[in-house]
Amino acid sequence: MRYHKIPDETIRRLPIYLRGLQFLLAQPRERISSRELAEFIGTNPWQIRKDFSYFGDFGTPGVGYGIEKLITHIKRILKLDVIHKTALIGAGNLGTAVMAYQGFKVYGFDIVAAFDSSTKKIGKKINNIVIEDISNLSSLKRRKINLAVLAIPRESAQETADKLVKAGIKGILNFSPCYITVPKKIKIITIDIAMDLARMPYYMTTS
Amino acid sequence: MRYHKIPDETIRRLPIYLRGLQFLLAQPRERISSRELAEFIGTNPWQIRKDFSYFGDFGTPGVGYGIEKLITHIKRILKLDVIHKTALIGAGNLGTAVMAYQGFKVYGFDIVAAFDSSTKKIGKKINNIVIEDISNLSSLKRRKINLAVLAIPRESAQETADKLVKAGIKGILNFSPCYITVPKKIKIITIDIAMDLARMPYYMTTS
Repeated sequence: MRYHKIPDETIRRLPIYLRGLQFLLAQPRERISSRELAEFIGTNPWQIRKDFSYFGDFGTPGVGYGIEKLITHIKRILKLDVIHKTALIGAGNLGTAVMAYQGFKVYGFDIVAAFDSSTKKIGKKINNIVIEDISNLSSLKRRKINLAVLAIPRESAQETADKLVKAGIKGILNFSPCYITVPKKIKIITIDIAMDLARMPYYMTTS
Repeated sequence: MRYHKIPDETIRRLPIYLRGLQFLLAQPRERISSRELAEFIGTNPWQIRKDFSYFGDFGTPGVGYGIEKLITHIKRILKLDVIHKTALIGAGNLGTAVMAYQGFKVYGFDIVAAFDSSTKKIGKKINNIVIEDISNLSSLKRRKINLAVLAIPRESAQETADKLVKAGIKGILNFSPCYITVPKKIKIITIDIAMDLARMPYYMTTS
């Protein structure tokens, strides 16, 4: 089954649904309505039904969606039904928090390598992964690691991204507060951990 | 000027525009078209025009938007035109990364207090802020701090959130990987740093 022209906004929401559903799966229940799911994750039922409509309806009116089936379906759409080997670049505070964070495993991301430029860190372990010298990024291709989490200071972010691209990385999750330029075929997502806070005052004062 | 019924999705995108515009402001230019802004931040021009249409058009066809005026306007909408005193709860790796992160200042968030439960950390400084005992959260009200960044293990997240609400906190940015229940008048935004990575494989294989 192929899914064409799914809007970016829908793709952006699918992981949110997925996480909510995985929380719900831990409860002793098998089905959920769009209304209940909406309430649980804090969105509108019509939004959920609209998003799901892009890839065929798998809910039954009055009965709801099968939670496990929905999880399988969303994972397949997002290509999360396989394990993705991922490298962490930068073993500072944020990098260490990333390594310790259980959330990546939930989506099938296995952080199997960590790199840093500091001789104080190289050779040490975080989360049972030995920190490697950042000058050895070229080994990523051979090791079939094609995703990287970039958690380094902005000064060296672009240069390191260039090296990651050369090493065959196909996707970069960038935590450095700067814009990075990569070839069009490479997907880069820049995270600004402050950005979500930026919409808080709007809600604090209007609701 | 009041803005009614701005969709959540638009509010979610405004900080993205704001950040892009602030980057652009550093360049020697005064105006930008929706097409240029869209290209810079990686979205569609029609999306930008549609989002801006909710609060009145301040672009001139063929001339574009004044960057500085746009920044002022978005900040006013998001109520980011005042400084928001913010407390960090949890001075672990993620909390330390949050403190060091320059991005919060960009949006007017001033992290003026930090709390932790570990006696090893209490009394020490991160980013020139003395870490306080987490049992002293009640002081927040008196200090007029009404925003909190929660970066603690999930086990104690709900209990701590309850205490924050009692201490008069109006908004919580939650980094703990769990759902937290708060009264309706409190705004809580839960961040999953892995979630953005979850939409990467979709793009890596389809583009």
